[in-house]
Amino acid sequence: MGSTIAQKIIRQHLVSGEMIPGSDIGLRIDQTLTQDATGTMAYLEFEAMGVPRVKTECSVAYIDHNTLQSGFENADDHQFIQSIAKKHGIYFSRPGNGICHQLHLERFGVPGKTLIGSDSHTPTGGGIGMLAFGAGGLDVAVAMGGGEYHINMPKMTKINLTGKLSAWVSAKDVILAVLQKMSVKGGVGKIIEYGGEGIKTLSVPERATITNMGTELGATTSIFPSDEITKAFLGAQGRGDCWMELSSDEDAIYDEIIDLDLSSLVPMAACPHSPDAVKTVDEIGPIKIDQCCIGSCTNSSYLDMMRVAAVLKGKTVHPEVSLTIGCGSKQVYNMLALNGALADIIAAGARVLECACGPCIGMGQSPNSGGVSLRTFNRNFEGRSGTADGQVYLVSPETAAASAINGYFTNPQSLGEPVSIELPEKFLINDNMIVPPAPEALMETVEIKRGPNIKPFPVSEALPDSIEKKAVLKVGDNITTDHIMPAGAKILPYRSNIPYLSNFCFGVCDKEFPERCKREGGGIVIGGQNYGQGSSREHAALVPLYLGIKAVIAKSYARIHCANLANAGLIPLEFKVEDDYDRIDQMDELSLPHIREELQAGTDVTLCNLTKGTEISLTAVLTDRQRKMVLAGGLLNYTKDTAE
Amino acid sequence: MGSTIAQKIIRQHLVSGEMIPGSDIGLRIDQTLTQDATGTMAYLEFEAMGVPRVKTECSVAYIDHNTLQSGFENADDHQFIQSIAKKHGIYFSRPGNGICHQLHLERFGVPGKTLIGSDSHTPTGGGIGMLAFGAGGLDVAVAMGGGEYHINMPKMTKINLTGKLSAWVSAKDVILAVLQKMSVKGGVGKIIEYGGEGIKTLSVPERATITNMGTELGATTSIFPSDEITKAFLGAQGRGDCWMELSSDEDAIYDEIIDLDLSSLVPMAACPHSPDAVKTVDEIGPIKIDQCCIGSCTNSSYLDMMRVAAVLKGKTVHPEVSLTIGCGSKQVYNMLALNGALADIIAAGARVLECACGPCIGMGQSPNSGGVSLRTFNRNFEGRSGTADGQVYLVSPETAAASAINGYFTNPQSLGEPVSIELPEKFLINDNMIVPPAPEALMETVEIKRGPNIKPFPVSEALPDSIEKKAVLKVGDNITTDHIMPAGAKILPYRSNIPYLSNFCFGVCDKEFPERCKREGGGIVIGGQNYGQGSSREHAALVPLYLGIKAVIAKSYARIHCANLANAGLIPLEFKVEDDYDRIDQMDELSLPHIREELQAGTDVTLCNLTKGTEISLTAVLTDRQRKMVLAGGLLNYTKDTAE
Repeated sequence: MGSTIAQKIIRQHLVSGEMIPGSDIGLRIDQTLTQDATGTMAYLEFEAMGVPRVKTECSVAYIDHNTLQSGFENADDHQFIQSIAKKHGIYFSRPGNGICHQLHLERFGVPGKTLIGSDSHTPTGGGIGMLAFGAGGLDVAVAMGGGEYHINMPKMTKINLTGKLSAWVSAKDVILAVLQKMSVKGGVGKIIEYGGEGIKTLSVPERATITNMGTELGATTSIFPSDEITKAFLGAQGRGDCWMELSSDEDAIYDEIIDLDLSSLVPMAACPHSPDAVKTVDEIGPIKIDQCCIGSCTNSSYLDMMRVAAVLKGKTVHPEVSLTIGCGSKQVYNMLALNGALADIIAAGARVLECACGPCIGMGQSPNSGGVSLRTFNRNFEGRSGTADGQVYLVSPETAAASAINGYFTNPQSLGEPVSIELPEKFLINDNMIVPPAPEALMETVEIKRGPNIKPFPVSEALPDSIEKKAVLKVGDNITTDHIMPAGAKILPYRSNIPYLSNFCFGVCDKEFPERCKREGGGIVIGGQNYGQGSSREHAALVPLYLGIKAVIAKSYARIHCANLANAGLIPLEFKVEDDYDRIDQMDELSLPHIREELQAGTDVTLCNLTKGTEISLTAVLTDRQRKMVLAGGLLNYTKDTAE
Repeated sequence: MGSTIAQKIIRQHLVSGEMIPGSDIGLRIDQTLTQDATGTMAYLEFEAMGVPRVKTECSVAYIDHNTLQSGFENADDHQFIQSIAKKHGIYFSRPGNGICHQLHLERFGVPGKTLIGSDSHTPTGGGIGMLAFGAGGLDVAVAMGGGEYHINMPKMTKINLTGKLSAWVSAKDVILAVLQKMSVKGGVGKIIEYGGEGIKTLSVPERATITNMGTELGATTSIFPSDEITKAFLGAQGRGDCWMELSSDEDAIYDEIIDLDLSSLVPMAACPHSPDAVKTVDEIGPIKIDQCCIGSCTNSSYLDMMRVAAVLKGKTVHPEVSLTIGCGSKQVYNMLALNGALADIIAAGARVLECACGPCIGMGQSPNSGGVSLRTFNRNFEGRSGTADGQVYLVSPETAAASAINGYFTNPQSLGEPVSIELPEKFLINDNMIVPPAPEALMETVEIKRGPNIKPFPVSEALPDSIEKKAVLKVGDNITTDHIMPAGAKILPYRSNIPYLSNFCFGVCDKEFPERCKREGGGIVIGGQNYGQGSSREHAALVPLYLGIKAVIAKSYARIHCANLANAGLIPLEFKVEDDYDRIDQMDELSLPHIREELQAGTDVTLCNLTKGTEISLTAVLTDRQRKMVLAGGLLNYTKDTAE
């Protein structure tokens, strides 16, 4: 039986588990990347592991999120990451050099390698045939330390591309069409492979746009073959030597095959407020717009920008539209500055932003109240733009540029014959904004720069034989990670400061909670159904850890948060009988008298409610590996123990 | 007796008063400018005046301050200003077009004309022989409505320049040398005129750098003659027809003459935390730096940027220095993008920001904790960078660029022979980011866009015959405008929302104050010595007006706040006997039974403390004109009344 591309790469990197869909597998990771918003925490975690030098083939720390720097915290974080990268064998991409995924594709990515990144759009690397996953900071830290990365073995989906894109239809329209077909849940538990004759018509930047937004399908990752087109791209980046061919076997078996005729596609847009609310631009019609934003890891390549410049050349942005443009990398920006395209963009009246994530993550350029904003980005969730009632549409660069000129939603096909843009035979290569790590001999001399907002990672200890704590909080059903650890502009600059963040823990439910935890020396949290749903942020486990929470007892858990609790060394426990939830009141004295022994044995867990003099039976919601992690006091300790 | 340049322009524009130093004069204003941080309020005030179309020769609304747009408020403000400008005959410069002062010099400024702007660095226009003043928003609103602008007739200071700047010494070093000589208070009550043979060696952008930072001397304004160099500059901007010659008479009499030999100057820096803490770069020595920021209205011209590009060409910014560069205008940016200089800047690893004020006003790029930041800006006040302990030095672009490469404070004279940079014979002229106002016939059709954060300006009424109110607040000595109306990142986005701002009024002294005012239907504030010192912000009068405050009774006042109270129609009253301060307690019932009659007559003011059954004698701290203003209910009403 033949293999898919992903199955081949997984087989080559399999460290533990079996390749049976749905079952836990551990993979060896060749490369890692971080961005700065999640990176500070990832490096604090890496530091807590005590590994002197990364064990990956290549790890890169990018700065692309917090580049506005409204306050000292961001520049401090940048310096922290730069110094820790230098010390521990990690490449550092300086602020202004560009967006992690674009840069990684240009300068570091290698076909057939595994990559995890502490950013959900890491699958961009699938555009050159990498098996690339978005992951939590702790997962990245563990991978840098040489540990496995665990996922459930995904199912395999093939998207079979035929035909060729019409003029003015672009890669963005391809992935929007896929989103329309599959929905934002359609990729869950799957790896999406692109194949068929149509892929030969798509360049690497176009392929990367498509794999980037595979994240919006909920897919584990997306991948293209590595072929002659990949080879040419890597050659033009002066990295032809790292190319290898990679394709699925003729007789590979896919769980699902979806056919898509590229020649049938027209310009599309994802309407507010979901990436799968897709209509054709013509269906939407000429509605008046207020803003266009071009850039982000989805659409900021040389090809994207040259196509935009060609539309703007000799024109003026409509007087009532604010058009922002941010190149994906210094390479792109520099090439446009040399070939005259940037002058065309400036002359047209575009607002050129620094090479960074920018408005895509709500870092500035919030539209006006109720404003209609066309964006070449990957997400249009309600409020993400920073304007609660902003109406964000996701479109191709061509559609954005045409609409910016006209002042209303415009199908670029109305512009006549497009100027033909080719990828250059040689990109402009100048890596002077990438700082290499210190040589191994000099590592010891590198001092970590740690601003006052950067606090050590909370270290957990091996599980004791028994636990006696109060039920410091009792909450109801459907508690989200936003309840547990709120985000937002007020709290975001403090992501490297767990002690400060702890002041906001469960603030939505009970403002007294942090104070009470400190007074009581920690405790146990009692939850209802679906505890920990929503965003995957690991802070929702790390901050309770800091506050001394030892266990959560709930009716049921959301999957990712449950895993984050185990990673942090907190025990996720479930009531065997749901109604027992009613037999615990807030501030009851609880005891887990045999907890270590029970977890070691894998048996049920006994809870004594000392206040009420009753006994309740619980289950630990842990895999075998996670039980070992919790016994060791979390993933970091477990990794250190097993590495020794 | 001959005249100075300033005396000539003042004489031509004098509407009221006599040109006796220190006495109140009213000037006809030819041009106005606003920026967006103060502009929203200025246009709300203009709107409240009910004048359909500006009566100036030229009024321009620039957007350059709030360009990061972290929230809907900024984009809403931009749209508000754009629509109100269109309706009322004002040119609108779109966000991204650049910094007001640089743009006004390029595209609108005219020698011999008067200009007021709601930004303290409006004297930049003195670089082409304009008489240009920074002013409050209400002053600008009144000038747009055709009203006079009042100042005290300044004394005349001449700075007599001889010699020629050495290589690598620049205009920034000239003004830093003047600041070293005169200090930040040395220009108070004076107009600084530059003359002597040395001025022939200085181009318009260089002259503008010098007049721009005259603001840091505390000067009323600064001015250069309009000569052949001015003519060439205006010609290169395609505006040669608006040039006129302008020089002081041979026998002009100055109150003060300061000689400065340009050839004696070396590269200088203003050290933390004052623009007059000036040392030579060599005196400071090679201290390690963290950040360099090039741009701002002081140093962002074509000449500045070309000199910076020449230093950076073929080099790499030091790996531990963050170098940001923001061009002053789209013209500059576009020219650099066409001639290859921008490519040199990008290649070196600079972070190129949007054309705007940016880090100069703390809008992003805050340095790291305790970081050393070299900036080509005009102010280095403590904390202004957004980093409380940031160490900001003010330097020339040449010094900044040389230091950015080396990673430590560097005298650019160590770089060898500089590349010679000339001003172009023709600048690149493309005004497509300047939106002209609607033709008069179509004014009525323009709809004002008013986002939910933009609230109407509080309208005051003509003074009643008598006032009966409680003493809703009693405070001590030295109350600042920061006490009355706090600023900061939390409150700044609400500058066009007086009702919202009112929730923070006097919050530092008494959190209950706003609520109490609302409950009591306004009242009277009792203050001590030096009431209203500090920043000139007019919100410190407008917000109490909104809350129903009718009068302040204090021991003494700071000058500008006292004028702002009168402008807003609030009565600034002083105790005739200071100890009477002790005869009023907070919440006493007070009465001013004959207030209108007394102000009309210019007599003392009688206060009855109804609670205590006592009578106190007060003085109104008002000029004749201000008494009329207060009777009319403030400057706006007064202007409307006198215009009718």
